[in-house]
Amino acid sequence: MSDPRQAALFAAFERARRQTMALIDGLTTEDCMVQSMPDASPVKWHLAHASWFFETFVLEAVRPDVPPFDPAFRVLFNSYYVGVGERHPRPERGVLSRPSLDTVLGYRETVDARMAELLDGPPQSARLLDLVELGIHHEQQHQELILTDLKHHFSRNPLRPAYRPPPTLAEAPVAALSFLPSDGGLVDIGHDGPGFAFDNETPRHRVWLEPFEFASRTVTNREYQAFIADDGYARPELWLSDGWDACQQEGWKVPLYWQRDAPERWTLFTLYGQRPVDPDEPVCHVSYYEADAYARWAGARLPTESEWECVARSDIARSAAPRRDAACHPRPQKPDGPVHGDVWEWTQSAYLPYPGFKPAAGAVGEYNGKFMVNQMVLRGGSCATPSGHLRPSYRNFFPPSARWQFSGIRLAR
Amino acid sequence: MSDPRQAALFAAFERARRQTMALIDGLTTEDCMVQSMPDASPVKWHLAHASWFFETFVLEAVRPDVPPFDPAFRVLFNSYYVGVGERHPRPERGVLSRPSLDTVLGYRETVDARMAELLDGPPQSARLLDLVELGIHHEQQHQELILTDLKHHFSRNPLRPAYRPPPTLAEAPVAALSFLPSDGGLVDIGHDGPGFAFDNETPRHRVWLEPFEFASRTVTNREYQAFIADDGYARPELWLSDGWDACQQEGWKVPLYWQRDAPERWTLFTLYGQRPVDPDEPVCHVSYYEADAYARWAGARLPTESEWECVARSDIARSAAPRRDAACHPRPQKPDGPVHGDVWEWTQSAYLPYPGFKPAAGAVGEYNGKFMVNQMVLRGGSCATPSGHLRPSYRNFFPPSARWQFSGIRLAR
Amino acid sequence: MSDPRQAALFAAFERARRQTMALIDGLTTEDCMVQSMPDASPVKWHLAHASWFFETFVLEAVRPDVPPFDPAFRVLFNSYYVGVGERHPRPERGVLSRPSLDTVLGYRETVDARMAELLDGPPQSARLLDLVELGIHHEQQHQELILTDLKHHFSRNPLRPAYRPPPTLAEAPVAALSFLPSDGGLVDIGHDGPGFAFDNETPRHRVWLEPFEFASRTVTNREYQAFIADDGYARPELWLSDGWDACQQEGWKVPLYWQRDAPERWTLFTLYGQRPVDPDEPVCHVSYYEADAYARWAGARLPTESEWECVARSDIARSAAPRRDAACHPRPQKPDGPVHGDVWEWTQSAYLPYPGFKPAAGAVGEYNGKFMVNQMVLRGGSCATPSGHLRPSYRNFFPPSARWQFSGIRLAR
Amino acid sequence: MSDPRQAALFAAFERARRQTMALIDGLTTEDCMVQSMPDASPVKWHLAHASWFFETFVLEAVRPDVPPFDPAFRVLFNSYYVGVGERHPRPERGVLSRPSLDTVLGYRETVDARMAELLDGPPQSARLLDLVELGIHHEQQHQELILTDLKHHFSRNPLRPAYRPPPTLAEAPVAALSFLPSDGGLVDIGHDGPGFAFDNETPRHRVWLEPFEFASRTVTNREYQAFIADDGYARPELWLSDGWDACQQEGWKVPLYWQRDAPERWTLFTLYGQRPVDPDEPVCHVSYYEADAYARWAGARLPTESEWECVARSDIARSAAPRRDAACHPRPQKPDGPVHGDVWEWTQSAYLPYPGFKPAAGAVGEYNGKFMVNQMVLRGGSCATPSGHLRPSYRNFFPPSARWQFSGIRLAR
Repeated sequence: MSDPRQAALFAAFERARRQTMALIDGLTTEDCMVQSMPDASPVKWHLAHASWFFETFVLEAVRPDVPPFDPAFRVLFNSYYVGVGERHPRPERGVLSRPSLDTVLGYRETVDARMAELLDGPPQSARLLDLVELGIHHEQQHQELILTDLKHHFSRNPLRPAYRPPPTLAEAPVAALSFLPSDGGLVDIGHDGPGFAFDNETPRHRVWLEPFEFASRTVTNREYQAFIADDGYARPELWLSDGWDACQQEGWKVPLYWQRDAPERWTLFTLYGQRPVDPDEPVCHVSYYEADAYARWAGARLPTESEWECVARSDIARSAAPRRDAACHPRPQKPDGPVHGDVWEWTQSAYLPYPGFKPAAGAVGEYNGKFMVNQMVLRGGSCATPSGHLRPSYRNFFPPSARWQFSGIRLAR
Repeated sequence: MSDPRQAALFAAFERARRQTMALIDGLTTEDCMVQSMPDASPVKWHLAHASWFFETFVLEAVRPDVPPFDPAFRVLFNSYYVGVGERHPRPERGVLSRPSLDTVLGYRETVDARMAELLDGPPQSARLLDLVELGIHHEQQHQELILTDLKHHFSRNPLRPAYRPPPTLAEAPVAALSFLPSDGGLVDIGHDGPGFAFDNETPRHRVWLEPFEFASRTVTNREYQAFIADDGYARPELWLSDGWDACQQEGWKVPLYWQRDAPERWTLFTLYGQRPVDPDEPVCHVSYYEADAYARWAGARLPTESEWECVARSDIARSAAPRRDAACHPRPQKPDGPVHGDVWEWTQSAYLPYPGFKPAAGAVGEYNGKFMVNQMVLRGGSCATPSGHLRPSYRNFFPPSARWQFSGIRLAR
Repeated sequence: MSDPRQAALFAAFERARRQTMALIDGLTTEDCMVQSMPDASPVKWHLAHASWFFETFVLEAVRPDVPPFDPAFRVLFNSYYVGVGERHPRPERGVLSRPSLDTVLGYRETVDARMAELLDGPPQSARLLDLVELGIHHEQQHQELILTDLKHHFSRNPLRPAYRPPPTLAEAPVAALSFLPSDGGLVDIGHDGPGFAFDNETPRHRVWLEPFEFASRTVTNREYQAFIADDGYARPELWLSDGWDACQQEGWKVPLYWQRDAPERWTLFTLYGQRPVDPDEPVCHVSYYEADAYARWAGARLPTESEWECVARSDIARSAAPRRDAACHPRPQKPDGPVHGDVWEWTQSAYLPYPGFKPAAGAVGEYNGKFMVNQMVLRGGSCATPSGHLRPSYRNFFPPSARWQFSGIRLAR
Repeated sequence: MSDPRQAALFAAFERARRQTMALIDGLTTEDCMVQSMPDASPVKWHLAHASWFFETFVLEAVRPDVPPFDPAFRVLFNSYYVGVGERHPRPERGVLSRPSLDTVLGYRETVDARMAELLDGPPQSARLLDLVELGIHHEQQHQELILTDLKHHFSRNPLRPAYRPPPTLAEAPVAALSFLPSDGGLVDIGHDGPGFAFDNETPRHRVWLEPFEFASRTVTNREYQAFIADDGYARPELWLSDGWDACQQEGWKVPLYWQRDAPERWTLFTLYGQRPVDPDEPVCHVSYYEADAYARWAGARLPTESEWECVARSDIARSAAPRRDAACHPRPQKPDGPVHGDVWEWTQSAYLPYPGFKPAAGAVGEYNGKFMVNQMVLRGGSCATPSGHLRPSYRNFFPPSARWQFSGIRLAR
């Protein structure tokens, strides 16, 4: 009880759980039901799964004798943990009208109460507290997914509902683009601090970097529109071969959520509803293929994840921490703002294990390691990433064709 | 107002609309949201679409100046009427968390009120009353689809919810199977009465029938289990070539909704929940391919739709009318019961226009005619068909691979 | 030996086998290898399969002790006869570089020699002679398929090879279109003669026909171009629902093999090479969906197969026999020419068993019966149909989306 | 003429072209036609494409006035060079019965003669000689593909033809497996010599390696059978998530080309025909997913490509050069044999550009660079790789699901 780490985790747990609940404020029961594509999940499922994580990996470990809230949930809300057993098929999450949202909220409350009992009680083992901490960060990841999945869902409804009213933002000039030089050399990459990190950020290891230059901000809509106007989507020589195939097959001509309302008038769907394209905002919802083609067109390239991390730890980043006022849409970058934080930035690094990587023991070892193929690393966090969730060593990863995350473009050369 | 046809239609309208509402009794908002496959639709969509039909084809025709309940609904709840304009894509009906169920119920009430005003008012033209009558029968068709689509939806939920508590039924021996002879000859087929019929039941026309024999009842689960036990699903010589391909590709080994709980213990999913297979019940949820293979195995064949109609109009049917006590599952056929009515009966007739067929004028002409290819005719109605909806000339139709309707097997030879 | 039927069959056998060989005159070994789509087969495969038919169903039956030419061929060249055993997968026929064409020609010669020995010997049973006759007609069907499959294959080669030099044809005005009235009534349909017929043409049975009118010739390219010019391919109200879906998905805008070389200049690929569209020729290589849409646009409909047969047996057909000079492309129909014979004519009849239909006994019973679903009947024969192969009762059948046969349009009303 | 580099390239050119022709010795015209899957190409296509490369990139550059052998070949035999213009679709290469093999061989002779004229003449620019050299290495790559594609093709023919008679090999014990330590550190990776290298091997750059151990030989069939016997193909915890999906979807239970003839008797298809599995041979025709799962099962991992290259340049490789006697199948590795060379070795490195990578100028810049996503690097060469084609810096790359190359497993840890 008087264990300070346990007390801090208890506070963080309660904060994270409250933040999740704040996200569903204003959503209807029906809004929480929809799965608009196999890659996305219903809000209700996210709510249940994040609770399932604590129940399965924390509560069952410490009190195997206490029956679960509902034994059927073990299968229904298991995402992909083979070590835990069977799973309800991912593309069929939208079929679960039962259990109801009310039942799922009751599930959350029960898990919260049992977790409170645990964390407000006698000191627990470091191993168990590690799992609690993992669960908190897991909860935060699903907070971001709730927003990206909901955005996809609302975008498919012809009524185009707005999730939140748009904020009134002070006009501010966007920062000019410059390239910041870095010497490279033998740098340390990966997590090394005392704080939390996912297993995929470890072990810390040395990487040799040649000197490079790093863009001072991410690419804006204005810059990206020049790429579109220059026939960027129609010139195969700018694209990776797989990217060109995807572009042709999917009929990409603009980023996801953009639509042309008149020859020269573009709008995009946001969580604030349908809005004109703001040329100063970071371009967003582009795939790796588009980011790569844009960089080639711009005579540059995407950074590697090591370069990115090297910069994030250095002076040239005015702040390693991303913006702290959560938002539902990326904002124009002010000249004196932080270097990153409004859109995830595609790197040219494939998502692979670091030298000496060991997945965590047990079923939680499936958290990250088994996805280390066919994906690219993104860095930096987005407007939808919860406060306190990020670190310079943080590695996000998605397939190169994914577009529904808040993903943008940082140049290097 | 004193037009007796109009008064009768008004009563029928109100009855049909009430019956629809009775069907959703006990369902949650979330239950009404789900689309479990592209062929099925959410209950909420059915509720809205049936109202859309009256609003679009009746109310707009008579009062084009009255604005619709919501202009967006014209697209959202148009099923397939090209003549009316754009449609929301069928496989994306489950994405519509908005409009809410409450809004849709309000839509229904508004349409009901406007229809009442219309039908309780001055006499309307026969053409308009025809459209009202069509809309009532359309509403009834969607009543049956609400049940079949909901059954499919619930069957995909591992919790296997029951829609209704099972009735307690008096034990009764199932009727023995016999074959009833018919002389055939030159018979009149198609609708001829003064009452309502869909355009696809017309014109009445002559068909020559060779003498044939017609089974006294539909095939039971017990009989079908003998087919399964005799390796019916593993013998290509019993199957149509396309049927065998479907069987292999889909892995069919039993009717839809059956599962083996132990080597010799079969259960099936019903709207009453999971239940043991009752050997006396009509076999149900089989495709045309399975019906055809069973008939070949049994040394018989399926009837043509003309044979079926000829029998339905003759003495050998104890009653042309199917059972009148609605049910959620087919019941064993009593020796003195009606000849048909618990399961739709696949015929060996392709769904084609009758000689001289003319679709109805206007967009409602798309109701039936444009589906006259790649489908087989079913006759007789099912336990889920609303009372008063059927006629001996009634033609239902589905692709030969469809299994989620209450479809069974009648033999002929 | 002195059995006149046997002698006649022997002569017909040799004639048919020679005709097949004449078809491959001028083709290279490589030409005979190609399978350009799963529905089509390599010429080499056709050559082998037609021989396999005689070896398997005739020679093995009469001399089971004689070893086959090559036991592996039993599987390799079995098309779809489940009763004979395993089959090489249809889409993989193009992978068979071995056996070589030379070996296959040797196979043909061996089969020919053994058949000659059989037919030039002591009298055989009627049952065996029936199988010989079936094999001859089977060989003829594959003669037509050799041409249609080769045409598809050559059309996919950018070099667009010509199979035969184009004939020089006398200019002749095309016959004007008129509609010939028929009384209908109770007519006899199906094969009844002493000559050969496939099992699917039997039994002869009565059909009641309402009075109808039958177009005096098939639709020409000129007429079809008016349909195209009138946006026929862009107006869903003209199409069956499945047809419209196919049209959208496949991007149909013209018949198969047509291409636009200039805004108003159309050419089409033929077995004579690429040629301008001749407006007087019958339109060809259209699907059932296109034929049906054209008929609706023209204010008419397609005939039923019974109507077609009724006309073919009547006076109004100047000749029941189609044109007798084989050709590689349909020709404009002269005013005094036969009523049919240059293109297969889609009927609005689904391919279904006649009342009382019994498939032939044994594995040859799979020849026709198991395809009686999801296909439409075509009547009349085409320019590529071998002389002597047809009868008024002849039923051809293909899925409604098939376009690579010589299929055209006859109107009725 | 007296330019020594030019003279050496001329000799190398003639040698490479002869080697290609030696490969088709014994193949029939029909064998050279087949495309057994979209990823593979017909032998005839390889023969033509390798000539097209010299004609397009060398001959046209130096003599743009000389007309090409056949202008149509520019499109027909362009593999994927967008900069050169249109291409015949890859999956339709097997449809090209024309041009004939004879014509293609004539094409080769013409290109050979023109190349001889060029190389045996006045000195050419270094830029042009670079393209000649690239063309020679390109020719060699297609030599290996001729063998792998032919193997796939023959394996799909139920007759299972043998391409070559099997050699008689001296029995020799296979080397025991040990792990060789390496210090790692800051190593130079990539091509640096004066000789030829592909652009993707450059620029040479520094990489930091942690100490590691490298297996002394590749995994044998015996070792891989232990993985199979230990249910390796049925334990998802051993697999990457995408790998497990591929394994389930494709039904993998053994390497490609293996089949079980009896419970304990395995054979595999080779270019020598069907043969028993030799437990001492390197396991071959496994995907990256299988290699990765095996490594995890064995308590090890796959090496990175930098580790691999570091070892290949070091003393611990007895020879940097792979075996020099070409073969159609990998052989058991002798204790004193070279460390690599019989099977390509999957590394855990994604195929990505080296720091500072610049594709070659012009259309040949599409050779490698545009494939740098979704593929894994293989190192070391195989029995089918032509002599003289390899270097320690050589990078091969295939998607992680590819199995038809001679790909095996090297462990590291």
